[in-house]
Amino acid sequence: MQLLKERILSEGRVDREDILKVDSFLNHQIDVTLLDELGREFAGRYENTGITKILTIEASGIAIACFTASHLHVPVIFAKKTESKNLDSDTYGTQVYSYTKDKYYRVRVSKRYLQQSDKVLIIDDFLANGKAVFGLKEIIEQAHAQLVGVGIVIEKGFQQGGQLLREQGIRVDSLAILKSISPGRIIFE
Amino acid sequence: MQLLKERILSEGRVDREDILKVDSFLNHQIDVTLLDELGREFAGRYENTGITKILTIEASGIAIACFTASHLHVPVIFAKKTESKNLDSDTYGTQVYSYTKDKYYRVRVSKRYLQQSDKVLIIDDFLANGKAVFGLKEIIEQAHAQLVGVGIVIEKGFQQGGQLLREQGIRVDSLAILKSISPGRIIFE
Repeated sequence: MQLLKERILSEGRVDREDILKVDSFLNHQIDVTLLDELGREFAGRYENTGITKILTIEASGIAIACFTASHLHVPVIFAKKTESKNLDSDTYGTQVYSYTKDKYYRVRVSKRYLQQSDKVLIIDDFLANGKAVFGLKEIIEQAHAQLVGVGIVIEKGFQQGGQLLREQGIRVDSLAILKSISPGRIIFE
Repeated sequence: MQLLKERILSEGRVDREDILKVDSFLNHQIDVTLLDELGREFAGRYENTGITKILTIEASGIAIACFTASHLHVPVIFAKKTESKNLDSDTYGTQVYSYTKDKYYRVRVSKRYLQQSDKVLIIDDFLANGKAVFGLKEIIEQAHAQLVGVGIVIEKGFQQGGQLLREQGIRVDSLAILKSISPGRIIFE
């Protein structure tokens, strides 16, 4: 998606080997006008697939999930990472490794909000090794719901997540795929 | 706001003394149509105040902050709770106590995204003892920016956060204020 790629090129920063910072518009400061456009794009791609729920993971997936959901007129569920008094004890859940935080955490979704009849679109800001998406996929399977596709804002094409998902026959829509990044240099596939 | 109160009465659950669960529409599953309406309401109340940024805290403030920002046409910044390779080292920050998680955590905002010229609206899903809002207020002060007001979806009127903020002359707009909650019984002010 050209609009997104231009924004990555103008504002993205690669300070160290494999981390692209786009925190001026995507995952710290949020450009809501841009994200609404990205959400509209995802919604257009999935408009005739009968999506009933959008599933994401806190925290940086929430914004793009919400804007996509607005255009598809379906609810968002965001999987929770931490123990909280606000979450039901009766949950689907799994362990996920976070690359950017270098630790494992438990991801959970209340059983109230995922049913066997649900057709689910996973939305997230980044796809790298795919650990978060595979965790969400496992939660969808626990609920016996259907995973229809995965919408990603920025896929790191040089890491294996996208390939692993597509090899399993899972539809993955990435709005920008990075071929390589290094300080001062961002190349798309 | 009547629309919100009706939703709280029909779907809110009080399982134990002072915790209201509204995770069917606000902070786990998200009803994006409702939140867009709530965001429109906040935007209407602050439309002539020159807001330049909306500040919230991950994770459950992000959705309502984004919908409010869409109507005000300003960016959102969400303060981060955890260490991450994606966050600049040069940040404003403070310690905040989480009531629902019963622990202290560090809250940070990159110095890139808050300037002295910013007029900031804080948005969050809940206001209880006010610890999160006071933390965000401190970050705004560190940036020498201006706190214009605080928009809250649900204020627990029986806890002291709202009173403490208003006593300091801070404008607080809560769309629903709870007078008391107990299992099976929710009363608004």
